[in-house]
Order: sequence, then C-alpha cells, then structure tokens
Amino acid sequence: MTFETPLALPPATDQPTFKRFLTRVAEVVGRENIQVVTSKDELEDGSYHNQPYTHDPHHILDQDHFVASAVVCPRSVPEVQDLVKLANEFNVPIWPVSIGRNSGYGGAAPRLRGSIVVNLGKHIRRILEVNVEGAYAVVEPGVTFADLHQYLVEHNLKDKLWIDVPDLGGGSVLGNAMERGVGYTPYGDHWMMHCGMEVVLPNGELMRTGMGAMPEPRKAGTVPGRLDEEPGNKCWQLFPYGFGPYNDGIFSQSNLGIATKMGIWLMPNPGGYQSYLITVPKEEDLRKAVDIIRPLRLQMVLQNVPTIRHILLDAAVLGSKASYTSTQGPLGDEELDAIAKKLNLGRWNFYGALYGPEPTRTALWGVIKQAFSAIEGVKFFFPEDIKENCVLHTRHKTLQGIPTFDELKWIDWIPNGAHLFFSPISKVSGEDAMLQYSVTKTRVIESGLDFIGTFTVGMREMHHIVCIVFNRKDEDAKRRAHSLIKILIADCAAHGWGEYRTHLALMDQIAGTYNWNNNVLMRFNETIKNALDPKGILAPGKNGIWPTNYARTTHKL
Amino acid sequence: MTFETPLALPPATDQPTFKRFLTRVAEVVGRENIQVVTSKDELEDGSYHNQPYTHDPHHILDQDHFVASAVVCPRSVPEVQDLVKLANEFNVPIWPVSIGRNSGYGGAAPRLRGSIVVNLGKHIRRILEVNVEGAYAVVEPGVTFADLHQYLVEHNLKDKLWIDVPDLGGGSVLGNAMERGVGYTPYGDHWMMHCGMEVVLPNGELMRTGMGAMPEPRKAGTVPGRLDEEPGNKCWQLFPYGFGPYNDGIFSQSNLGIATKMGIWLMPNPGGYQSYLITVPKEEDLRKAVDIIRPLRLQMVLQNVPTIRHILLDAAVLGSKASYTSTQGPLGDEELDAIAKKLNLGRWNFYGALYGPEPTRTALWGVIKQAFSAIEGVKFFFPEDIKENCVLHTRHKTLQGIPTFDELKWIDWIPNGAHLFFSPISKVSGEDAMLQYSVTKTRVIESGLDFIGTFTVGMREMHHIVCIVFNRKDEDAKRRAHSLIKILIADCAAHGWGEYRTHLALMDQIAGTYNWNNNVLMRFNETIKNALDPKGILAPGKNGIWPTNYARTTHKL
Repeated sequence: MTFETPLALPPATDQPTFKRFLTRVAEVVGRENIQVVTSKDELEDGSYHNQPYTHDPHHILDQDHFVASAVVCPRSVPEVQDLVKLANEFNVPIWPVSIGRNSGYGGAAPRLRGSIVVNLGKHIRRILEVNVEGAYAVVEPGVTFADLHQYLVEHNLKDKLWIDVPDLGGGSVLGNAMERGVGYTPYGDHWMMHCGMEVVLPNGELMRTGMGAMPEPRKAGTVPGRLDEEPGNKCWQLFPYGFGPYNDGIFSQSNLGIATKMGIWLMPNPGGYQSYLITVPKEEDLRKAVDIIRPLRLQMVLQNVPTIRHILLDAAVLGSKASYTSTQGPLGDEELDAIAKKLNLGRWNFYGALYGPEPTRTALWGVIKQAFSAIEGVKFFFPEDIKENCVLHTRHKTLQGIPTFDELKWIDWIPNGAHLFFSPISKVSGEDAMLQYSVTKTRVIESGLDFIGTFTVGMREMHHIVCIVFNRKDEDAKRRAHSLIKILIADCAAHGWGEYRTHLALMDQIAGTYNWNNNVLMRFNETIKNALDPKGILAPGKNGIWPTNYARTTHKL
Repeated sequence: MTFETPLALPPATDQPTFKRFLTRVAEVVGRENIQVVTSKDELEDGSYHNQPYTHDPHHILDQDHFVASAVVCPRSVPEVQDLVKLANEFNVPIWPVSIGRNSGYGGAAPRLRGSIVVNLGKHIRRILEVNVEGAYAVVEPGVTFADLHQYLVEHNLKDKLWIDVPDLGGGSVLGNAMERGVGYTPYGDHWMMHCGMEVVLPNGELMRTGMGAMPEPRKAGTVPGRLDEEPGNKCWQLFPYGFGPYNDGIFSQSNLGIATKMGIWLMPNPGGYQSYLITVPKEEDLRKAVDIIRPLRLQMVLQNVPTIRHILLDAAVLGSKASYTSTQGPLGDEELDAIAKKLNLGRWNFYGALYGPEPTRTALWGVIKQAFSAIEGVKFFFPEDIKENCVLHTRHKTLQGIPTFDELKWIDWIPNGAHLFFSPISKVSGEDAMLQYSVTKTRVIESGLDFIGTFTVGMREMHHIVCIVFNRKDEDAKRRAHSLIKILIADCAAHGWGEYRTHLALMDQIAGTYNWNNNVLMRFNETIKNALDPKGILAPGKNGIWPTNYARTTHKL
C-alpha cells in the first residue's frame, strides 16, 4: 500500500515507520478512509461546510503549525479501539475530533503537530435512540445539532421534544458537550444535560459510565428501537451518577478517552414560546442590566441562557465594517451610537425567551419588563415587531432549539475575516461585568481591533465571549491578535478571572493560570493521564496536559 | 505517651507500630483528639445525637466487624494533611467521615477493620461564607444542615436564601453531597448543586477544584468575610467546571481525596410556598401515580424532589407496629388498608410542594390536582387541613429546607429497631416502578419483614429507598436482613437496576454488578486509585475499590 509523504511527521516517528503504521491502520479502516496531509494547499479552504475537516480554518499561528500528518476516519467503535491499540503499538499520537467544527478554538487541528487526526464523525453518526418518555437522545460523535433537529422534525416529535443548540447548528452534539459548550434554552449547559457515556480508553478498551456499567439485562435485538445493543441497564440515560466515583467529568476537556456514545437530555416542549429583545442605549447600561438580570436568573424568571450582546456583534452579523463606516481603526463611541441608531438597537442587546403556556409567559414578561424599565431608554421587542432583517429573527430560532447557520457572518466584519474566542468567566454582577468588559475592551482597542463580544448568562456566572476578528491573510494582524489574547489571559488572571475553554495555541498559558498551590491541579491531572495513557498517545497537550513522554518544555507555547 | 490496646489493629500493623503511629499523630492533633477503640462496650450507644461517632449504630454484621482501631479528630486542614502523610509513612489505612451520621449506610464505621477513623467534623466545622448575591455557602465538613439553617435564621437571611435538607437535619452538608445524597426542594440533587471543592489528596497535598485552582488575586484579610483566605478566584462557587478535566465527580463516593471545603448552591427564597399531600387508596395506584408524575416532573410543574411513600413508612413514623396490630409477621392487604384508613392516608402518599408567588402556586396546583384526579379515591391535603400529628406537618418543614429530626422514628416499628437502606434507581414509569416495588416487596415479605419504602422523584429517575428494619439485638433477624439485601441486589441486577449508594457490607457486591465489559469500570477506578494512592492508605474498599496492597479476595464480602 502506498502513502504520500506528509507535511509533518508525528514526533519521533520516521517516514518508514509512519508508512508501516498507516498500512496497519488501512487494514482496520480501509485505505479510502486515510488521507495524508501532504501540503499547505490542502489547508486553504476555510468553509464551515466542508467535510472532513483536517485543520483549523482560523489559524492564528502559521497555517501549518497545528497540522495533522494524516486524517483517519474509522467506521465503527471497534475500529476506533483497534486504531487506539495501533497508536500504542507504534507510539503515534492521535487527536480525536467528532466533527471538527470547533470554530474559534482550533477547528479539527491537533495540538501536537504531526498527530493523526481521528475524524469520528464522518462515519460514526447514528442517532441511536430518541426516547420520548425519558426525554433524551443517544448520539454518536457525528450527529450534528442540525441532524438531531431534523430527526425530530421527520419523526413528528417537535411537539414533544426540543433540543438545545449553540450559535451554529453544524457542530457535534457529543463534541460540544465534551468541550462543555453552551446553548441558549433552559437546557443550555450541555455538559450538565448529558447523561451516560461510552468511551474508548487510551488502552483501547471500551467503557460505559454511570448506569451504563450495569450489564445488559436482555440480549440485543429483543427490544424495539435503533440501539444495536440495549443499554447496559434501564437507567443509563436517566441517572447520571451510577455507583462509586462519578467519572464522566474527567473525560470532558481532557485527553483520557474518546467518547463514542452519549446520552443527552432533551427539553419537553414547554407548551408555548416567545422570544424577545431588550435594548439598552448606553455602554454603561451593562452594569445596570447585569444587576437586573442576576436575581431574575436565579429565580428562573429568566428561564433560559440569555445573552447580552455588544452592538458590534449584531452589527457584524448584518454587515461588514465597510458597509457602516470608512473608519479603519477601532470605532469610537459616536460611531457605535450611530450604528446602534441605524439598526434600531442599543449599545447592549439582551436576547431572551419565555417558555410555557400563555399565562405563564405573560406573568414572566411582566416581571422582566418592569425590572428592565429601570434603565432609561430601554426598548422591548418581539420578533414580529421588526420587519427588517435582524438578529432577533435568528435568535428566535436558536432560543427554541432550531439550528441556524447565520451567526458566524460576523467574521466578515473585516476582509478575509477569521476569529479566535477569548472566553473568561464572569460573575453575574454589574460591577464585575463592567470591569471585565472594560479591561478586555481596552486591550482589544490597543491592538487596533473593534471590541465584539457577548455575555451568555448561566445560573450564577456568565461566559463572556470576546470575538477577536482578524484578517487571516495579514501576518501582522495575526501576530497582533495572538499577542492580544495572551495579554488578555494575563490581565484577567491578575483580576482573578479564568477562561472556560480556549484555542490550541493558548491551552498551555491558560492551564498555567490555574496554578494554585504550586500547580497541584496540573500535577494531579498529569498523574491520572500517565496512569491511564502511559505512552501518551491520546491527544497530548490537550488543555495543557502533556504526558510524560512529551516534554512540556519542547512543545509548550 | 500511652495508648490503650485497640480492639482491632490496622491490617499488617503490630502493636508497637500502632502506638508509635499514634504518638506521631498526637504531635499533630493533640493527645486529647485521639480515642482508641478498646472494647465492644464503647460501640453500644446507637443514639443519633452523640458525638463523635466511632461506629455503625445499625450494624448488620457483628457489632465489631466494621470497627476502627482509633478515632482521630484533627483541628484544621493542615492537620488533616499531616495525618495523611503519617498514614503514608506508617502504611496505616484511614477512613474519613465528616460527621459520621451516614445512617443506614454504615454510620462512622470504616470498611476495613482496624482503619483509623478521621472525624473531620468535630473541629473543622465553620461556615466560611454565605453569599447572598451569588446564592451559595462555603462549608467545612462538620457543618450540619441544622447548623447552616440556624446560620440563616440568626443572620436574618431566611427571606433571601433557603437550604435543601434530607430527611434528617443532623448530617454534614458536605458529607451528604459527597455521598450524592438527596433532599426534597428544587435543589434536592446535592451533588449537582455543589460548586467548587478543596480536597486533601492521598499524598497529603491540598487541591482546589474548578475555578478554585486560580491563584488568589488579593492577599488574605483584605476582603471582608469569614474565609481565612480569599477563594482562588472570583468564581470558585459560581462556575463548577473550571478549565480542563472536571475532576469533582471522582471524589464523590470514592477514596481519592478528603474534602475539606465545599461550595453549595442555595435556593433563592421563591417568594411563596405551599406543601401538600396527595393520597391514593390502592397498592396498584402506584402505577398510575408514577405515570402522572413523569410528565409533570419533566415540565417542572412538579418543581421539587417529591416522594411517594408507602403507607407503612408513614405509619411507622407515627407509631410502632404493636400500636397498630398484634400480628407478628408481615402485614397483609387488609391490615394495611385498615392502618391507612385509621391514619386517613392512602396505600401510597405523595408529598410535594409548590414554590413561587400565589398566582404561580395556584396555577401549578390546578394542573397537579387535575392530573391526579384521574385516580379513583384520590384525596388532596394542605398541612392546615390536618389537625392530628401527621407526616405532612414534618414534610412541610423538610420541603422548605427546615431541618427536622423526626423521620427516623420509623426504625422503632419493631423493638430494638435498626435499619439498612436498599436504594435501587428506577425509571419514572408506572410499569417499572410497580415491577421494582413488587420484586422487592416479595423478597422483603419472604424474609418475614414488612415492606417500608419510598420513591424520591428526580428529574428522570427515582431513588427507590427500601427501609429494611431489623431487631439489632436478634442475631437471626440481622442475618435474615443481611441475606435479604444480598438477594435484593441480585434480583434487581437481573432486572437491569442498580443501586446508587449502599452500606459498607454491600459495597463489594454492588460494585460487582456494575461489571459491563469484563469489569472495565472497576479496573479503570483501580488504575486511578493506585496512581493517586500507591500505598492505598485512603479508605480502602470504599464503594468496592481496593488498592493493590489490599487483596480484594481477603477483604471482599
């Protein structure tokens, strides 16, 4: 069998070994499911819709810095297991992705140059079960939010169950939960809403967590439904914890296992829905708005994960910077006010929704309106109030779990737009939010960019998502964006704020800020990593965790 | 320094070594904080209120089977760390308890005979913070539900924050969460509602999880509040996951660390409250009731963790078996009906509550009443409808987070009553609940006991708690109770049901039922255990996990 010479070999692997390894891999997955990455040209396409992904379309370092030697697409869970065993045999690092649409955080690219990217989602993409009584689904890695939604539509289940979706519908349900991503309905905390996993361990063994560790009570095929094999017990997707240590968490944002199945709780159709937009006119109104939101969210008057979006995030979805202004540098207050006025939006725009029968919605809306009315110049909108193309029309779908693909338009704010997310956690406190906003805004503007961002409101914290948009064909702009995020991480750490998730290029730095008591957390994570994966084959460097056999100092950024 | 000879030495530790070890321990905690367990007589007192606990008042095996060699009460977290280091130095196993009121699951007794019980709660019992804005508390192991409630009362915070309590108020808030215990308000899943932990690792190092791994942004003492040292960052109790692997779960029901601080989310005062009781007359009504409950719970019309209690659980709280009947063996249908009639209760009794302002409560109550009205003979009660002493008056407190101490009265159903919990997880499905009930009831009656039990209703599952009451002074009754629970575990495993928690004596058997794919979960747990605790000093045998240096075959039950 012949294989091309890759752009980047796996570390400590010579050409002949690499080819022998791929020959063995081909015996498992078929030659047609192996693609060697041979040149930069293959990495050029940044489209969200191409499959399979082999790289990071929003590369912040050199395009071929985080690059796979090859992409392998196994067709089944046993093939994933065999692949892991081969990786151990040949000491070749592998980097699993579900779909690879980890947009703004590294896409499908591996942390360690030359790793084998294992694209699980190309073939392993069944919806194994949608259970109406228990209100859950069981999915494989390749099932996207759009797929799951489509399934509900096709099976006439939308009147019974809703899914939760993030801003874009093309990502993996399982993969997003593994990265602890969020959506915007009451089921917005995807990790919290998962229940039961199947994982391939670094030694190739298959494990089921929680109640899935119970043996099958009946043989496969004796129960109707699409699961080839019945779940290990009757409550695998109903009760997350099982017996003894609750292990699921250590598989999230980690390199300890490859998830191959996941239960995800679905929201029962709430019996009514109304999305809304509340605009506040002044930059400084963020403070008041957040203090209004906190008690409402804690009391679940705000039932979902709402968002407070900066004017430029909405503006950028609706048009490029050039469509609004000829200014080249960061826009000032007057220009922001002018854009807000033009779009009939505020400097901050709060997107939420009401769930439940009409009397419930009316009661909640009354409380919310009254509370926000304390802000001078506040305006309230329902989608039907707005005739023009607007973000609320998109959010109206998102907040009821209907996937959309419009939101990423904001990367076209500037020509050849690409993006990088900076995602610190903030208190739901006006003072804290204002401080975090102004600290980050200052640095963004210093680096010559416009501040574009949003706060997504969890129960007791906010994910502050700062969208760093850069021209990916401008090497200097990329350097400045990279430099900016490094400064932001340091600034926020000095204030006691940490990030919840990050791009490949920043994993080491952020892991380094979680260093209380002489880095005990990292040493703890490394101990577990080395015990479960002594050869360090699984996703070395993921979230800053390097196995012993990859010297941190060599690879650290 | 002199120490008595213990009833049971730690395994592989001779008398002189044991005394040298305690001499070193005394240098850490003070001689007065060490109690050697010298005779059975000390184990006699089964009172719930005595402190410190040294044993299991509800021993199902011989009274001195699960017995500590000594109980040590450290006074601070650094003392816990030093103690762990000494345990490593001397190869002595330690068994940490927060308070030791793990009633029905082993009390304060260690799994491995001769272990040193570390009673954390006697001295380490501060409420470090109650944060109104963020709606959380930070507690040490010795803080009981009653303590935390009392704190809110004394600080006039009850109009702002409520706690969640289990059936009895004397347990540790932290310890209960670590065992994944449940309460009955909307915040009833204590593990889900914890946020941020501090743990002493098996090597004696101190680690903080989640955002607590961020370094202190400011020096200790510069911020008002009772925390000696400010939390590692601003969101330790606000955002659970942090960055990288979410490790908290592996410390629950495990032997991988000793929790010394925990954040726990508190419920904002909902602005109104109404408890209620719904009785259904027939045994078979359980099926209909559960099917009515499922959609209401999923829709959060049922906002809290309600319970469906068997008539004899309520009857036993209100009087002994002898006070109702002269029958010696298990009671039959006619007698159960007679007791239900006498107490004006049903064969099943559903205790719930409504939370929120009056219009909300009225709307929810309307939906609930209408749904339950499908059951013939159903009755609805508010506490004010009942003049006699009744369980609803107690539940009225429990369901709003006011601790009580009345519920354990049911162990006096028979003379010298003691108890053992059998706790399988069930679907929220009438068919499944009826099947699980009848499978367990059959075995309970076969063993000559009355069925006493309750279903506590989580979001998608029920914790079915079967209360096995036995005469602890009757060796034969104890043997039968022990035999019964072993049969119940096996029966339920054959049906695909697993237990969520158990008594020391059943940990091995239950862990053995979670054996999918050649026991891969146990081997995974053991790998982590051995990596973090190579000498196996921390709680060997906890939930069936034995470190390498304690041969499973020697100690397994």
